[in-house]
Amino acid sequence: MSEALRAWFLGPRGENAELAERLLLEAFRDHVFWRRNHHPEDGFTIREADRRRPGYDDAVAVLIEELHGLLAALKRDVPFFSGRYQGHMLGEQTLAAQIGYFAGMLYNPNNVVAEASPVTTRLELEAAAQLAAMIGYDPATSWGHLTSGGTVANFEALWIARGVRYLPVTLALAARDLGERVPAALPDGTIADLRDLPLWALLNLRPSDALDAHAALHAVVPRTEAHRALEARALSSIGYQEYTRQLAATWDDPLPPAVVLIASTAHYSWEKIVRALGIGAQRIVQVPVDAHARMHPEALAEAFAACAKSRTAVLGVVSVCGTTEEGAIDRLDAIADVCNAARREHGLAAHLHADACHGGYAAALTRDAGGARLTGPQIRAHRGDAWPDDAWVRAVTALERADSVTIDPHKMGYIPYPAGAFLLRDRRARALVSQEPPYLAHDDGDASGFLGRWILEGSKPGAAAAAVWLSHRVVPLTVDGYGHLVAETSAGARALHAALQAPGALGSCRAVCLPEPDLNVLAWAVTHPSCTTLREVNALNEAIAERMRAGGEREPAYMLTRTRFASPGCDGIAAPLLEELGVGAGEWPTEGLVVLRSTIMDPYFVAGPPTPDHLHGLVGAVRTVAEAVLSEG
Amino acid sequence: MSEALRAWFLGPRGENAELAERLLLEAFRDHVFWRRNHHPEDGFTIREADRRRPGYDDAVAVLIEELHGLLAALKRDVPFFSGRYQGHMLGEQTLAAQIGYFAGMLYNPNNVVAEASPVTTRLELEAAAQLAAMIGYDPATSWGHLTSGGTVANFEALWIARGVRYLPVTLALAARDLGERVPAALPDGTIADLRDLPLWALLNLRPSDALDAHAALHAVVPRTEAHRALEARALSSIGYQEYTRQLAATWDDPLPPAVVLIASTAHYSWEKIVRALGIGAQRIVQVPVDAHARMHPEALAEAFAACAKSRTAVLGVVSVCGTTEEGAIDRLDAIADVCNAARREHGLAAHLHADACHGGYAAALTRDAGGARLTGPQIRAHRGDAWPDDAWVRAVTALERADSVTIDPHKMGYIPYPAGAFLLRDRRARALVSQEPPYLAHDDGDASGFLGRWILEGSKPGAAAAAVWLSHRVVPLTVDGYGHLVAETSAGARALHAALQAPGALGSCRAVCLPEPDLNVLAWAVTHPSCTTLREVNALNEAIAERMRAGGEREPAYMLTRTRFASPGCDGIAAPLLEELGVGAGEWPTEGLVVLRSTIMDPYFVAGPPTPDHLHGLVGAVRTVAEAVLSEG
Repeated sequence: MSEALRAWFLGPRGENAELAERLLLEAFRDHVFWRRNHHPEDGFTIREADRRRPGYDDAVAVLIEELHGLLAALKRDVPFFSGRYQGHMLGEQTLAAQIGYFAGMLYNPNNVVAEASPVTTRLELEAAAQLAAMIGYDPATSWGHLTSGGTVANFEALWIARGVRYLPVTLALAARDLGERVPAALPDGTIADLRDLPLWALLNLRPSDALDAHAALHAVVPRTEAHRALEARALSSIGYQEYTRQLAATWDDPLPPAVVLIASTAHYSWEKIVRALGIGAQRIVQVPVDAHARMHPEALAEAFAACAKSRTAVLGVVSVCGTTEEGAIDRLDAIADVCNAARREHGLAAHLHADACHGGYAAALTRDAGGARLTGPQIRAHRGDAWPDDAWVRAVTALERADSVTIDPHKMGYIPYPAGAFLLRDRRARALVSQEPPYLAHDDGDASGFLGRWILEGSKPGAAAAAVWLSHRVVPLTVDGYGHLVAETSAGARALHAALQAPGALGSCRAVCLPEPDLNVLAWAVTHPSCTTLREVNALNEAIAERMRAGGEREPAYMLTRTRFASPGCDGIAAPLLEELGVGAGEWPTEGLVVLRSTIMDPYFVAGPPTPDHLHGLVGAVRTVAEAVLSEG
Repeated sequence: MSEALRAWFLGPRGENAELAERLLLEAFRDHVFWRRNHHPEDGFTIREADRRRPGYDDAVAVLIEELHGLLAALKRDVPFFSGRYQGHMLGEQTLAAQIGYFAGMLYNPNNVVAEASPVTTRLELEAAAQLAAMIGYDPATSWGHLTSGGTVANFEALWIARGVRYLPVTLALAARDLGERVPAALPDGTIADLRDLPLWALLNLRPSDALDAHAALHAVVPRTEAHRALEARALSSIGYQEYTRQLAATWDDPLPPAVVLIASTAHYSWEKIVRALGIGAQRIVQVPVDAHARMHPEALAEAFAACAKSRTAVLGVVSVCGTTEEGAIDRLDAIADVCNAARREHGLAAHLHADACHGGYAAALTRDAGGARLTGPQIRAHRGDAWPDDAWVRAVTALERADSVTIDPHKMGYIPYPAGAFLLRDRRARALVSQEPPYLAHDDGDASGFLGRWILEGSKPGAAAAAVWLSHRVVPLTVDGYGHLVAETSAGARALHAALQAPGALGSCRAVCLPEPDLNVLAWAVTHPSCTTLREVNALNEAIAERMRAGGEREPAYMLTRTRFASPGCDGIAAPLLEELGVGAGEWPTEGLVVLRSTIMDPYFVAGPPTPDHLHGLVGAVRTVAEAVLSEG
């Protein structure tokens, strides 16, 4: 696989430029000749004579000059292609993705609907189905599509979850209005008429049982009538304010508004999403994480127990596969078990979402060339490596147990922006957010080609679908394809983890690290014997980060980023670090902990000679900068 | 300008392919040499010897074969470049945009934050500022950025509007908690302490007065304390359910939930947005339109009066500049006057939003080369044309009066997807949706380079910013730049409007058209003496549309789309059409009216010989297809 790896990217020196140029030109000329061959009888719109006019010449001159200005300006961009940049989740793109995007862009299809993108809508559904198959979703019942990025994908997850979780309330009220019995399975397996259930029971139907009940109503009531009855009672239709009054008027049961249980390491955009949806940031319950930055299954169980006690419904549980700041993979197998136990023990149901925006491609490691699941021992044997361990494999394999999963091809998929993906295990749930425009609807049955109906966005680039699709064809979603990229970059992070902590690596300073990361993101603090308070440690790390950050006036020799762990979300992470830093925990609640952070996106980071040794280059740069900061005091 | 027009696009036959190829190669090689020149001492990661390995060869073979598969598949895409496609709002892209996107994509900057996109974040802010200047916003107080498209941009508009409109309630409660006086200007000009105001008055502060009051609170209370007090009371923080209870508990005033007054021609995504935000689809009040498909100012005034009577607050008013189905431009000057009158007469305030996703670039017609405003007579004199009339110019000029405006560069900007834009007149309002991540915050004062703080999306393509920026440099936002494209394509739509209605143009059939469109979108129904009911007319038009739609198995000679006008939203549009169709209005409420629809994106549509005459080609194709349908009927 190391041989193929050399062909997958343009290369830090543009080593594969000749190949890339040839293929880019082929894509471009192929497109031009498509135009030429399209109704040749139409003749030419722009003639040779037109190209000899002063106005034409002037316009071309402006284009060339302004392009030169742009190209010159872009030189000030960040060299993400280089092993010298190990900062954000941003690196090289696969050659396939670059060329696929370019080829698609020339056609400029709009994947909102197949009639404006007959080819790339198919490619988008195929690419999403490939991701769904990789994580283990059943292709017959799941669904997925691409988004502009992880935030929109995660937004859709919670938007749909809100629809599904409140569906039983809507169904019960609509069934009363219609005078129809609607049977539903309760968590204990018994069947009840939704109309007879108390609010608490309605708010605790399993997502799949809610969707079954939805289908049951449609089976007995004509479509239009059912639609009208549901619209009169649905949150999305009557709005949150009227919905709140309706609950009070009907059940007179002042339950607290539902909460979302989110790993405290989850991305900052989750709060943005919860605010925008009207759920409210205070309805987030942050679930503590352990020293590995993984959500504590026991803490999740306690959060469920607290909800049961306060009679608070749980809209959703958000687990992370590949945290932004630590590269941690929640033990999703244990998380899913806790969700099941909460249902059994407390009668609490929830939509389980896995935010695998960064880490989703890790599931490729669990697939052989034929798509069959690989066990931990099989993966290790195949790769001749002691990594990953069985717990890691169980966690990644458990993505198939989540109700929805988000994966960003523009992170570990090495696809150019914009490319996120939303995957839904039970595709029936998408009906809860569907919308019908008058000018796009062709009666195509399940309208699979009309994505705009079920997604937040409308017009969207078919080029992104072409990029993801082509990249998945060239670098397959298997242990030898994307799995290799995940393994190599994770190995890079572990190597950096070890190198930073090697005796004397940072001279008079030393690195205090989290445990070995689950993926390719590493966070650590640098300290020095002269740093005796947390504030001093933070100042040192801020100063190092400032000198090593990209995008400033001068480009440092090596580039990384920083973050600040804050209490209480990161208490579990920080405790051992504070101890190792020897600064006591007194300042922690107010100061937080500033750490340096590197995402190893460089697939050649630990390729060995003659590849440049950026691993030790980076460590050396941290030492040089740290000592310079200290000496300048 | 017709001379420059020949240089702005690749051309329907790829006439400018040589130029494009040269510039694409220049952009590519320039990027490759940037890589080569970046720390040349690092040496090569991929060596010649690596390229002779079987694994390398195999990977290259896969790339080439799969790319060929993709290129072959793309041939089934829709020929948007051709004058034979006059369907959706999708056409050619400017050369500048194509090359700019490609150049930017090679660097793959992420415009979520300037440290991951030092160049393209600046270009994004510049491109948005150019659009803001075009519509007449004050650069010192406005703000804008690019989005993945119009839906997200419109989402942001209503998301921010919700924050601003409910801000006085939050401020009043926080001021009570803090025991601080917060002065605010009432619609009648008097100053009151927010704490003393009834709920109705709080819900009817003008957006700018609400933001002034926000600043006033911050002026007297330390930042952290103010933040805590506001968070304890803000809708986005406590959520809609608790907010609803809070209103009831504090004021005991059972006001109906606020509504959004939306032109009945507005895009279908508005309902999606209102549902997602938790406002609820039923809180949309559709404002009727006239025969031109423009929002009735009188109807808007009546809607305001009805709200005043039922004591219903108005979150926002959504006016459209360039409706999706009719290309209509609301008389925004009159709409804004009605909003002012509603404040004076009823004490009703609202956030005024202009959805100019399609039509926003029309404002370029009102700018001379130096950026100064042009009057109607000046525009007509400059272009030597009788179009546009003064009412049109007043409506477009009034975009500067809207609180927010959305414009899609990927529509009339001829930019590849994804490129929408959100523009905000009073940038202070963005604070109401801001979000702070721990790992991106550099203390850069107003943090203008950290877009992720104030927008819905996170990671986003800097390449899109490069495309919009370069295109605006080459095709300026003036009467001779984008104004020329708007004028030419609008002239195309008017020419089609006339040609369809020329005697005998459709043989035994005839076209029934809306009045002349305000922009480049045209909708019409074909009828025949044998069609005596609405159902028959609809069947005829459905059959024509089916044979002329793109994206199917066989490509028709000319391509267009269709839509269905529905009651009651389109009552005003349909009344004269039904009369002219002679079918009576009895079936209208249930059947709606199916019409054919063309967006003239082709800038050469009315260029005259030797450019192919697609205008009459399209009319002839409609006739041929209509007669074929009838003869097979």
